[in-house]
Order: sequence, then C-alpha cells, then structure tokens
Amino acid sequence: MVLIGTATEEKENFMPAAWASPLSFKPPLFGVAISPKRYTYNAILASEEFTVNYCTLEMADIVARTGEVSGRVVNKKEKFNIKTRRGEVVKAPVVEGCYAHLECKLKDYFEVGDHFLFVGEVLKFSHDLKDLKPLIYLWEDTYTTISDVRILKPREK
Amino acid sequence: MVLIGTATEEKENFMPAAWASPLSFKPPLFGVAISPKRYTYNAILASEEFTVNYCTLEMADIVARTGEVSGRVVNKKEKFNIKTRRGEVVKAPVVEGCYAHLECKLKDYFEVGDHFLFVGEVLKFSHDLKDLKPLIYLWEDTYTTISDVRILKPREK
Repeated sequence: MVLIGTATEEKENFMPAAWASPLSFKPPLFGVAISPKRYTYNAILASEEFTVNYCTLEMADIVARTGEVSGRVVNKKEKFNIKTRRGEVVKAPVVEGCYAHLECKLKDYFEVGDHFLFVGEVLKFSHDLKDLKPLIYLWEDTYTTISDVRILKPREK
Repeated sequence: MVLIGTATEEKENFMPAAWASPLSFKPPLFGVAISPKRYTYNAILASEEFTVNYCTLEMADIVARTGEVSGRVVNKKEKFNIKTRRGEVVKAPVVEGCYAHLECKLKDYFEVGDHFLFVGEVLKFSHDLKDLKPLIYLWEDTYTTISDVRILKPREK
C-alpha cells in the first residue's frame, strides 16, 4: 500500500492507494488510479504534483484511517498525526516512516472506467530496504506483509 | 507477479509482469504496462484479448524463466511445460496452478514513456485463496511471498 501525498494552498492530504504501479523506465513514470470523487483527484489537478509513500506494516492503522474520511472535511495530517517533511523537488509532503518515496510531477492522465490514471514523472526516488516490512492489502480490512522467505532465481546467461 | 497469457493463430505465449493493477470497478478494468519490444505487445494488439494469471511462490521458476526468452523465438508453453486451459470467454490461455485468473478483452491502450498501458475489461474473474502464497517480486532475481501475519483494521462505522 502507498499513501499518495498532495499539497494545495489549502492543505496537505494523504490518500491510501493499492491500484498503483511503475509504468516506464525512461523516463521513469509511475501511475496511480484515483476516483474523481476523491479530494486527491482535485488536489493533483490543482498542484500537478504528488508523492508516493510506500507504507510499512506498522502503518496499517494510519492507512486504514486515512481511507475512511475525505480531505474535504478533515485535515488528516492533524487528525492522524502524520509526520511529514516537504519533498526535495516537489511541494507535496513526504511521509516519514515509509520505506520508499517517489516525488512526482504530473505528466499525463487518462480516464479508465470510474477512475483516472494519473501518470507522474518520478523526479526523485529514495528508499531504505533494511528490515523491509511492506504493508500489503489483502482483502476487506485485512493487511499483511512479506514473509522472510527469499527465493533466488538467477537469470541464465 | 502475474503471467500475461495471449493466444494468436501462431501460438500461445506467457509474459511475466510486475507492473500491473486493477484500474476501475465499473466497468471492471485491469491495466498492465508492456514494452513494445515484447512479443506480448503484438500478440495483444492482434488478438485483442489477454489473461492475467496470479502466480504462487511455487511458480517462481516458471516466472523467472518465461521472462528470459521471447515468444518470438521460443514456444514457452512447450519449453517450460506450462499447464493451461482455454479461457471460458477468451481464447487466451488460463494458467493452471495460479490462485486467481482474469479473462480480459482489450478496451484501450495508452503510451506511457517506454511502455504501453494495456487496459482490459475483465469479463471473467476466478480465484482460490486457500493457503494463499502469492509470488512477490522483490528485486534482482529475488522473490518472496506474504507472511502469515494478518492485521485486521475494521472500518469505523
């Protein structure tokens, strides 16, 4: 799970997203599907920037809670005590405690059914994979992380 | 990890993909980013169909091996002994042993950097989540699965 971070003149906001993926190496592009009902939809169109914050298992509560309320009516940063710093190359907030961060500038967006795919160019990428425990959404209200198993399948030369 | 299954008049083919995600509930749409260098790129454009086969940890070897060679030069189904059945609503092959399958009809595609995002309408969805061990790609040549941890975060009513 990732938290999509946005900043407008009004407020910073955070939306959990599971429908998100890298899309391109050159240039480095990342896509996230967002419903036009979401506050984040308007925030990205207004600011043309967003961050992608890869959450850890410890953040299950923040992720679940931020998904229950809209940034239109709640200041999630204050309500959920989300620790952030400003991005290095974007104004959108970077969430502390995440194991990886992307800072993105909006490059394009496409209507796909009841969502829009926002495509961001990744201007900055940072990560810390030590003791990696990514938050994985399974199904209704249920989360997990990766196992300690490591399967190595080296490529045949 | 998923295997994207395609069928043309020439052959069935299978391409591992990590850059894939649902995109819409209504209609149900699924997207996968595919380089135009891939055989699968042409196969989807020719057949306008594909399957999405969610792989288990046991399939790490098949996934790694199918990613090393092109369907242009190898019949992967024969070479890697991939067990399939024909889709119920598409001609593209469904891979046995996977824990979930989508049968998709190509609805749209977008150029995103050095890849194209293929958007399929999900015509059929099946899954079996018993003893779930999804194959997760971590980084170079390394795979894992989910842990046994289950964190429940019920929504506040």
